[in-house]
Amino acid sequence: MTAPLPRIAYEPLVHAALLEDLGIAGDVTSEATIPAGTQARASLVSRAPGVLAGLDAALLAFTLLDPGVAIETFAGDGERVETGSRIATIAGDARALLGAERTALNLLSHASGIATATARYVGALPPGSHCTIAETRKTLPGLRALEKYAVRAGGGANHRLRLDDAILIKDNHVAIAGGVAPALDAARLRAGHLMKVEIEVDSLQQLEEVLAHPGGADAILLDNFSLEHLAEAVRRIGGRAIAEASGGITLASIAAIAATGVDVISIGALTHSTIALDIGLDVEMGGIGGPSRPDLRVTPVTLAGE
Amino acid sequence: MTAPLPRIAYEPLVHAALLEDLGIAGDVTSEATIPAGTQARASLVSRAPGVLAGLDAALLAFTLLDPGVAIETFAGDGERVETGSRIATIAGDARALLGAERTALNLLSHASGIATATARYVGALPPGSHCTIAETRKTLPGLRALEKYAVRAGGGANHRLRLDDAILIKDNHVAIAGGVAPALDAARLRAGHLMKVEIEVDSLQQLEEVLAHPGGADAILLDNFSLEHLAEAVRRIGGRAIAEASGGITLASIAAIAATGVDVISIGALTHSTIALDIGLDVEMGGIGGPSRPDLRVTPVTLAGE
Amino acid sequence: MTAPLPRIAYEPLVHAALLEDLGIAGDVTSEATIPAGTQARASLVSRAPGVLAGLDAALLAFTLLDPGVAIETFAGDGERVETGSRIATIAGDARALLGAERTALNLLSHASGIATATARYVGALPPGSHCTIAETRKTLPGLRALEKYAVRAGGGANHRLRLDDAILIKDNHVAIAGGVAPALDAARLRAGHLMKVEIEVDSLQQLEEVLAHPGGADAILLDNFSLEHLAEAVRRIGGRAIAEASGGITLASIAAIAATGVDVISIGALTHSTIALDIGLDVEMGGIGGPSRPDLRVTPVTLAGE
Amino acid sequence: MTAPLPRIAYEPLVHAALLEDLGIAGDVTSEATIPAGTQARASLVSRAPGVLAGLDAALLAFTLLDPGVAIETFAGDGERVETGSRIATIAGDARALLGAERTALNLLSHASGIATATARYVGALPPGSHCTIAETRKTLPGLRALEKYAVRAGGGANHRLRLDDAILIKDNHVAIAGGVAPALDAARLRAGHLMKVEIEVDSLQQLEEVLAHPGGADAILLDNFSLEHLAEAVRRIGGRAIAEASGGITLASIAAIAATGVDVISIGALTHSTIALDIGLDVEMGGIGGPSRPDLRVTPVTLAGE
Amino acid sequence: MTAPLPRIAYEPLVHAALLEDLGIAGDVTSEATIPAGTQARASLVSRAPGVLAGLDAALLAFTLLDPGVAIETFAGDGERVETGSRIATIAGDARALLGAERTALNLLSHASGIATATARYVGALPPGSHCTIAETRKTLPGLRALEKYAVRAGGGANHRLRLDDAILIKDNHVAIAGGVAPALDAARLRAGHLMKVEIEVDSLQQLEEVLAHPGGADAILLDNFSLEHLAEAVRRIGGRAIAEASGGITLASIAAIAATGVDVISIGALTHSTIALDIGLDVEMGGIGGPSRPDLRVTPVTLAGE
Amino acid sequence: MTAPLPRIAYEPLVHAALLEDLGIAGDVTSEATIPAGTQARASLVSRAPGVLAGLDAALLAFTLLDPGVAIETFAGDGERVETGSRIATIAGDARALLGAERTALNLLSHASGIATATARYVGALPPGSHCTIAETRKTLPGLRALEKYAVRAGGGANHRLRLDDAILIKDNHVAIAGGVAPALDAARLRAGHLMKVEIEVDSLQQLEEVLAHPGGADAILLDNFSLEHLAEAVRRIGGRAIAEASGGITLASIAAIAATGVDVISIGALTHSTIALDIGLDVEMGGIGGPSRPDLRVTPVTLAGE
Repeated sequence: MTAPLPRIAYEPLVHAALLEDLGIAGDVTSEATIPAGTQARASLVSRAPGVLAGLDAALLAFTLLDPGVAIETFAGDGERVETGSRIATIAGDARALLGAERTALNLLSHASGIATATARYVGALPPGSHCTIAETRKTLPGLRALEKYAVRAGGGANHRLRLDDAILIKDNHVAIAGGVAPALDAARLRAGHLMKVEIEVDSLQQLEEVLAHPGGADAILLDNFSLEHLAEAVRRIGGRAIAEASGGITLASIAAIAATGVDVISIGALTHSTIALDIGLDVEMGGIGGPSRPDLRVTPVTLAGE
Repeated sequence: MTAPLPRIAYEPLVHAALLEDLGIAGDVTSEATIPAGTQARASLVSRAPGVLAGLDAALLAFTLLDPGVAIETFAGDGERVETGSRIATIAGDARALLGAERTALNLLSHASGIATATARYVGALPPGSHCTIAETRKTLPGLRALEKYAVRAGGGANHRLRLDDAILIKDNHVAIAGGVAPALDAARLRAGHLMKVEIEVDSLQQLEEVLAHPGGADAILLDNFSLEHLAEAVRRIGGRAIAEASGGITLASIAAIAATGVDVISIGALTHSTIALDIGLDVEMGGIGGPSRPDLRVTPVTLAGE
Repeated sequence: MTAPLPRIAYEPLVHAALLEDLGIAGDVTSEATIPAGTQARASLVSRAPGVLAGLDAALLAFTLLDPGVAIETFAGDGERVETGSRIATIAGDARALLGAERTALNLLSHASGIATATARYVGALPPGSHCTIAETRKTLPGLRALEKYAVRAGGGANHRLRLDDAILIKDNHVAIAGGVAPALDAARLRAGHLMKVEIEVDSLQQLEEVLAHPGGADAILLDNFSLEHLAEAVRRIGGRAIAEASGGITLASIAAIAATGVDVISIGALTHSTIALDIGLDVEMGGIGGPSRPDLRVTPVTLAGE
Repeated sequence: MTAPLPRIAYEPLVHAALLEDLGIAGDVTSEATIPAGTQARASLVSRAPGVLAGLDAALLAFTLLDPGVAIETFAGDGERVETGSRIATIAGDARALLGAERTALNLLSHASGIATATARYVGALPPGSHCTIAETRKTLPGLRALEKYAVRAGGGANHRLRLDDAILIKDNHVAIAGGVAPALDAARLRAGHLMKVEIEVDSLQQLEEVLAHPGGADAILLDNFSLEHLAEAVRRIGGRAIAEASGGITLASIAAIAATGVDVISIGALTHSTIALDIGLDVEMGGIGGPSRPDLRVTPVTLAGE
Repeated sequence: MTAPLPRIAYEPLVHAALLEDLGIAGDVTSEATIPAGTQARASLVSRAPGVLAGLDAALLAFTLLDPGVAIETFAGDGERVETGSRIATIAGDARALLGAERTALNLLSHASGIATATARYVGALPPGSHCTIAETRKTLPGLRALEKYAVRAGGGANHRLRLDDAILIKDNHVAIAGGVAPALDAARLRAGHLMKVEIEVDSLQQLEEVLAHPGGADAILLDNFSLEHLAEAVRRIGGRAIAEASGGITLASIAAIAATGVDVISIGALTHSTIALDIGLDVEMGGIGGPSRPDLRVTPVTLAGE
Repeated sequence: MTAPLPRIAYEPLVHAALLEDLGIAGDVTSEATIPAGTQARASLVSRAPGVLAGLDAALLAFTLLDPGVAIETFAGDGERVETGSRIATIAGDARALLGAERTALNLLSHASGIATATARYVGALPPGSHCTIAETRKTLPGLRALEKYAVRAGGGANHRLRLDDAILIKDNHVAIAGGVAPALDAARLRAGHLMKVEIEVDSLQQLEEVLAHPGGADAILLDNFSLEHLAEAVRRIGGRAIAEASGGITLASIAAIAATGVDVISIGALTHSTIALDIGLDVEMGGIGGPSRPDLRVTPVTLAGE
């Protein structure tokens, strides 16, 4: 599966999210109603089917509030869960468990929502399709690393990570540069030997201009093409560049689009309109006790990247 | 309308979002294809009907890349836009405009998506209803200030901002504290004189325990009550506490729920499953020119909080 | 007692304070005069009677410079110490102990100074008084979380934590809003269902305006009232709102003020003019030795929130 | 006078202090009660005699919330103010003025409290005394730059800024190093050619050891010496090193201590037990108006370091 | 030329560098010896021939200490300067000029040192060579953006910016993966459609394995090949992949290496062993005067990215 | 030897350097080609003779990516290594080892390059010389603490750490102050009792002015003096101040300069034009295995400052 993010990559986000929720006086409700030292056990449980992502980050929220917490996991990022699946069990200080609950769930349900949607699109591809599903740069501020990771966890492949790792010439660039040819020339000149060049076209005619260019492009983004035009474009490209389809893709249309032979289908909604996966924290009441109830302790596991 | 956030509140987020997208080498595509000093004019245009939020933050993205940018706005946060509405026009360095485009749109379409959803729920309330719509703490990490603001822009009212500004006793707290009465006692003891106490109940029976308590609660969260039970609960509370309904609220059910007389309806999906409002940046090609085309300059306005 | 702050809440402050003192080359004096690997034992000792606060943060300073340090505590936040009381013993690298000394003492003596003053005011209340002592927002920049916590450790209750968690209408707000009634109307409109509204009045006449308002206020701040007027105000309020007295409160006057029946007395000097509690670090010379003197090791305890 | 701190030195502190107070939703009271766009004029007014420090930082709080604010100053850091002295007038957005008020006053009254205390000690020196007053490293976490600056504004001179800019050998260092001579030897070896070496002694006998050392010390800290011993110590040092007195200095004793001939008197209480200078913000009600009342604008001045 | 970095990309570095030098009390020398308000004019002057880079960042150091500074530039990044060339003239507060001097020069002379070395290698290429010069990831911590930019300013092209924007399979990866073929297979699987794959080979035999692989590689790094083997490798690759030479390149050998036909030559020393370009700040004594000497003001220019 | 920096001093730099290299998706090459859980052993090996510095920081890079890493060290900062010397062996997760490799090497080879150059200059001093070698403030932005430490590790002594810990009057200060005497007067007035004053002179005549001044200077910087003038200057100073030589020092000239009797020789090139010490990471192929190969584990050591 996709490799976990290193802890130093997501710890600042979890740290900031916790402090955003705790404010300066902390979880006053738990402080008031839970005696100091109370131990509890709680489980992350999925309330809907989906694919997990962000579990390490979510579990870190508990660890940051109670470094002595014991964690046992029953599923991992990229794995499918069903309604009622137990994902992980956490045992530790009851105040810490409830204080970190919302932060953990917000991270986990958002990333898992992205992974779940990605997996749904991947699952809708025709059997044997070589096509990959990619997100876009329509991510939420500060969350790009987590969201791009969640797409990978869901079986997708990442598009550009940011503006500086690939060239993607869009209509405005073409217009300002004075046409497809000068835009491609300028792009090749700027790109280092490890940077790819993609260009967006919105008609077969414009595609011809790209294909006629000596240097060509590494990839061609076929924006809002009809199914017929997509198929024709793939035929004309003939493997000389990667063919990417984008624009208004839905679960209903994706199989047909993939059937045109495009290599990549990119979908902005994966990250800009995410439906959170419903995951809850069930506190196991039998598991609540005084400070030294060793029977509560689950087998500790090491967080990825820790 | 709701007051704008001060610039110091959202500038770090916009700054971080820009750097997240620019990486260390910046927008190589615009650098390659757009001659240095090229001026352009572009407009934020809504591609769907909705309610705006986050415009100041979005415009700041352009200003941070080109401090000399001129901005004219045609709509503001909390205002309704239609498909095709021009929201703002920005004139300045063409590379800066395209380099900041995605960051600006990501901020604006997310916050406006929240405001739009909130306004839709508010609009579905029965005429004359005194009921308010509130979000929850199910916000995305690092985005809570912006998201809670977007709810206000959409006509909602904020629930707790974080764990330390109100007490909200949930089922686990009641269980650990040993019942409704000891939980409420402990809460009152901890709350300062400016902190409210709310308690979640999941049955009329549990509601009775709250009402029977001498100190009572400032607000009572009726979790997943049927319409009948909601109405009965409101009747029993009799104005002695604020009645809040939550759990599985939809646009279809909200009018009926409000009709039961509850004071507040809280909806997690407003922030955990936001559908972005579709907003684009139209570069006006006639508006592109060399460094000193003063005819491109629009009347500058001051950003809120600047 | 009051719950400890989570470590993530105070660690950045301790970290910054250490670096502020260490500069870029560190404790050159200890580096020069103490052989590498020297172990030592030292005790935090109170040189005056008082109430502790901030011990976790102070001890963290030692831990951050020598993670292998062993700590034994003899008193905790909220507890009374006398002249000569041993608060904690720290054993570890001698350079680390002396390098962290001033940072630890600065944190501990400041927070304990606030707790001590708070406890003195609380102790001066008439026996059986229901009145609580609160600080204000007159805290030092960057230290609010620690200072508000210290007030709780001293037996006080917190006033507003910041500008966004309660509404407090002051004279200027009333004047600009056009009177008590419009100000209260506007406040209620803005406050969510979990936000309280307090209003400051400076005369019995203005108090009448508040009491005559249909929505009223959750709390009323009686600013600089004479004892007679305080008593009369409490009588007129009649339990319909919380009565808070403020303005020029001293240890000499507090009993009489509490006797008027007010619910809260707020005192700015608790945090704006703190007298540090005199606490020192006694290095036990017998306890100094080479790198591997296990007899120096005290029983390690876990830092709260670690 | 002492040079102002550059803005980049204090801006992060002011920024953090403002956000600490504004939380994520800002000044809800002013938002509710003050119509958008309302302009106002307010003056910082001293309510007690003292010496100013931190004015630039305080004024920056207003500027950060309303960059269009106009400021006129009538006094500056290091200058004496009397009860009722107008320090500065600020005209701008009324919400910004009230939102920044507490942050500005907290900074200004704390720093001015330090400057005032310093000036009081300086003023108590015998006429013609060459003695200087210095603070210690007993400063509050995060505030050292501001507090050390305030001492300079009050007419004092700074002791060590931090652990790395001078060597100060204390009793524990002497003990671990094995005596005065090896400690001084080690210190000279470590000190670069621009780093001074001071040593603390607690008896005339120990002073002799220092004076007998070939390299000697640049300064000698006479800790808790009686007046007689101070005078004798100064006589024995005979100008070969700077003589510093410390320990239990009060306003009552300082003249006599200075009369012994010591060069420096250091006082921890200047910064660890600061009494805030009482300064308030008077909103001039006549000065409140709609958005475009140009008569409200005062002559703008440039902030130091801006 | 290469596009300037946006100010938000380098401002944090300049800010941190200034604070690193100013400490908490600032430039005490200038404070002591230069009367407040003194104006001066100074010029950045090259003391050796070279190519500039980092001028915007260097000038920002002056602007951050005196926002009213006036700046006139006579050369820009990527331009050649000779011994004695005036690069820019800065007029403003004399204390600010001297306080920012070292920070500005440290930034400018380091980046220009890299640009100068790059230009020297580029200049040593045979006339008409299509070969490009690239740096490596052997950059200094925190300075990568500036250093990679300096390489572009010197006429080079960037290699990978970081670990996540291209795949570069080295010997250890091949060994662990079990050979060239499985390593290339795994790489293609992981790479998104916009990520290139390069593989390092250290013999013609290993090159054959790469060329025999169906997917091949986008680029091949010929590590420490002799001139003969380089030429043979280029012949065998035959344009099917980009050929990169690396390992022990010197100014003496670069022409011969380029003559083998490789496309890219990468040189670690460009950034890991930079010789600073000698640049000084000449204060023009005639240009020193009181606060209001308008004749000192030069024509202000706008900083790139401001 | 020189004391190690505390971990809190260098951890932020290592953290930032790692994230700078990992980007948001991490080391995609290792992720693709190395199976999850693969363990490996690797050694830092010097490829040239030199003196080490920065080893703790370099090793921390591995620890931050795999906290379970085991480290054994064979040399330490300040120690000499030869070509082929094994410096440390690290065993742990193979992906983490390769992901942290470049960050670790960049830190170690840069700091060791500085230490090596310093040691070379120190070694070139005449036998028995009392002269010390110092760097200047010509350090790279953000790296001053590490670079000044590396000079100490190489046997040098630090010059000023920053602008606020000593006064160094240069030619421009003298000119603006109106001469040597007023400059020295002003400096003494500003300097606290623990701050030294140095003055730069560029002729014997100017030296006379300094020596004629009643207060004199603690140190005198003889800038660009000929050997004859240096010797004459040392004679005239006669031990009344520290004599520092600077300007165009080379390995060839340093012995003669030291022979003139100066106390300090300062060399900007130590830090502004550092030649990295060539150090590599050798992955021991026999040491690669599955997740649980305990034979790979070396004896763990504790990082300094951890």
